[in-house]
Amino acid sequence: MASNELYQYSLALGLMDGVADKGLSISEYLKHGDHGLGTFRFMNGEMIVVDGEAYQMLADGSIRKLDPDGDAIHPFAQITRFKPEISARAVVPSKEELNDIVSGLVPGAKNHHLAMRLDGLFKSVTVRTAAGQTEPRQPLIEVGKNQVAFIFENVRGTLIGFRQPHYMQGIGVAGDHLHFITEDRERGGHVLALESDGDLEVKAAQMFKMTLELPKGDEEFNEAKLLGNHKDLETVEG
Amino acid sequence: MASNELYQYSLALGLMDGVADKGLSISEYLKHGDHGLGTFRFMNGEMIVVDGEAYQMLADGSIRKLDPDGDAIHPFAQITRFKPEISARAVVPSKEELNDIVSGLVPGAKNHHLAMRLDGLFKSVTVRTAAGQTEPRQPLIEVGKNQVAFIFENVRGTLIGFRQPHYMQGIGVAGDHLHFITEDRERGGHVLALESDGDLEVKAAQMFKMTLELPKGDEEFNEAKLLGNHKDLETVEG
Repeated sequence: MASNELYQYSLALGLMDGVADKGLSISEYLKHGDHGLGTFRFMNGEMIVVDGEAYQMLADGSIRKLDPDGDAIHPFAQITRFKPEISARAVVPSKEELNDIVSGLVPGAKNHHLAMRLDGLFKSVTVRTAAGQTEPRQPLIEVGKNQVAFIFENVRGTLIGFRQPHYMQGIGVAGDHLHFITEDRERGGHVLALESDGDLEVKAAQMFKMTLELPKGDEEFNEAKLLGNHKDLETVEG
Repeated sequence: MASNELYQYSLALGLMDGVADKGLSISEYLKHGDHGLGTFRFMNGEMIVVDGEAYQMLADGSIRKLDPDGDAIHPFAQITRFKPEISARAVVPSKEELNDIVSGLVPGAKNHHLAMRLDGLFKSVTVRTAAGQTEPRQPLIEVGKNQVAFIFENVRGTLIGFRQPHYMQGIGVAGDHLHFITEDRERGGHVLALESDGDLEVKAAQMFKMTLELPKGDEEFNEAKLLGNHKDLETVEG
């Protein structure tokens, strides 16, 4: 794929319905880019792909670097070949203000997808990490009840993620969806909150093309209702 | 693109918001397949692409074959390189029963996209053809009030279209979305109803991959709310 095209495997609605037994292999996934996020079989942990390297961040706080030809599979994942089009240095007081900052950097893009990346010294980053399904087909909203939260303070690291327009809610995740990893690649997770008091490097690119690949031969997916509930999705992925 | 991958330009939500001033050129569009449907600038008529040949069906009942390098543009369009995977002969008493017939031919596909084609002698086909916007940004639901309906009886022809899963409503059109053209290429339109008392040839293919391309540099699209109303969309595209 060309740069700044979004590739997505399966649907956020699938996770909402607990469809997480099968998925895309990591080797197939990484063919589509170098900047991404997603989840794992049984929603066990959070994935981040930074500069083409993929990591699994687990609820016990540990991280493992993934073998690009290994056996990891992803019931839901997004990735792009990220080529920043806009770059700026900015103090980012909160996740909400990050939204405003990026909207200012990439105006007229509210109906498009964005790829985003932040690097620098964070005053704090609050993350959560899914601990995985405790039974088959457990919906994401239930999995979320067992998630573990961490607060990292005065930490250098990188945020990787995407913004999707509101009409994509359910297919993907509307709004800013960001995963974090520390510079030493020792900690990370799904970003709930963030704060910097010095400048961070903010990079973004607007995306005009998206490829959506759906599961093949996955009976759980085929039988899922996929009706979703946008409020639930905001609760767990917002 | 490989066969049986769906390419879509822009959103049905765009039409709902009256975004129809700009669009994809026909030459770019036809690069992505040989089986498709869509609309034109200002929603003036219905497009069908059958065996790689594109036609504009107008509200005065006329049809014109389109120059593949001509100036036609499409604010919304879908296309695939259709390679039928399932083929059957069946009496099709109604559009609703066509849905059941195809579901029987391609089981386990309710959460996927399908490409569909019907050929043969129809007892009747009822179509409508959009007469176009009468003012800029006129929403699809208003354009639909000026549409013209035709009933063709004992006519040979071809239905071309797609089925999209319910979660795609607004991005595309959930359910069966079919356009019709007569064998002599003299009449056609967007299918509202159909009936055969003899066998029709029914062909279908399941689609696992979809590419969604969004408008670039289109201020109307950028500013549109794209909130839609699923009931309105069912009214005009169902």
